Amino acid sequence: MPHEIEFFFDIASPYSYLAATQIDAVGERAGVAVRWKPFLLGGVFKAVGNQTPAALQPKAAWAMRDLARWAAHYGVEFSMSAHFPINSLTTQRALVAARRVDEAMFREFASTLYRDHWIDGVDVSTPEAVADAADRAGLTGAQIVEMTAEQAIKDELIALTEEAVDRGAFGAPTFFVDGEMFWGNDRLHFVEQAVRGEL
Amino acid sequence: MPHEIEFFFDIASPYSYLAATQIDAVGERAGVAVRWKPFLLGGVFKAVGNQTPAALQPKAAWAMRDLARWAAHYGVEFSMSAHFPINSLTTQRALVAARRVDEAMFREFASTLYRDHWIDGVDVSTPEAVADAADRAGLTGAQIVEMTAEQAIKDELIALTEEAVDRGAFGAPTFFVDGEMFWGNDRLHFVEQAVRGEL
Repeated sequence: MPHEIEFFFDIASPYSYLAATQIDAVGERAGVAVRWKPFLLGGVFKAVGNQTPAALQPKAAWAMRDLARWAAHYGVEFSMSAHFPINSLTTQRALVAARRVDEAMFREFASTLYRDHWIDGVDVSTPEAVADAADRAGLTGAQIVEMTAEQAIKDELIALTEEAVDRGAFGAPTFFVDGEMFWGNDRLHFVEQAVRGEL
Repeated sequence: MPHEIEFFFDIASPYSYLAATQIDAVGERAGVAVRWKPFLLGGVFKAVGNQTPAALQPKAAWAMRDLARWAAHYGVEFSMSAHFPINSLTTQRALVAARRVDEAMFREFASTLYRDHWIDGVDVSTPEAVADAADRAGLTGAQIVEMTAEQAIKDELIALTEEAVDRGAFGAPTFFVDGEMFWGNDRLHFVEQAVRGEL
């Protein structure tokens, strides 16, 4: 039986936000751990030659309706950010830094950033917004922001992004259950089947 | 309450095949009619500047696994066609022609083409394969193929494709429930909620 779900996420991605509101419950129902792994979606796009779905105008228009339907389906709040798409480089580096400091606070930090960006409309690409979210998650914001300038943190974000690409990722959110990859908030049912060994 | 589901489909699209195996049951459960509307997916892509998801190598590789999972989920047969992607111009014109001749036979013709292409691996882009499928669906294959050369049939396929684009389509399958558009086999649950008035 699979022992964990890996969840590659970027705060900039609205469908990753939706998945982030559900993935821990999926793990709990199946009795497996969920490992949250920050990566840089822009780096994935660049590596594989993909681009944001929002680049296509009719798809972007449809996605606005679709995101609202998913939020209602899950019973979670969602508001399209006026800052979309943000450059999430500092944000994702901060998540890598937080993960080194404390796993539980890292998870709270990720959820805080998601709420700030996808419910409250905050531009979470800035050091100020990142520090503020980190403080509220129990971390020391100033320390986390300082760490984003460290080469080891930069390298770790690159390594996580390259790992995802090497394993087949081309977008976000991306899940792995052992060797099997699943792409998209709309594949959580397959992720759940996979961890239950029913796929 | 909505009175029908419109189902825009192209035989060349594997996710449209999957949706085609389910959409009539969705309509039956909700007590509404399903109107099958052939369009030219290549024409949609050209009009909106989109391209087949299969153009991106890692996405194509993932889709092979994903399609198999959906087929298993639905309990239907599926085999990736070695001819993918076919030029479905003659195929889709033949469907427009068949719809003029007889609605019930048109529906059987569509299902026959889908089975030929996505289960039995037949290249259904040729006049011979189209005629053969039409004959088995109760139509006169030679007549259907002849009709594909008529300007009125060509114009109707263009009009159906333009209609979908004008209403916001950018891919396939595309569904409409009154004014609301849904894209993708993976949105059938929202289509069903919409026809039940629960969305």
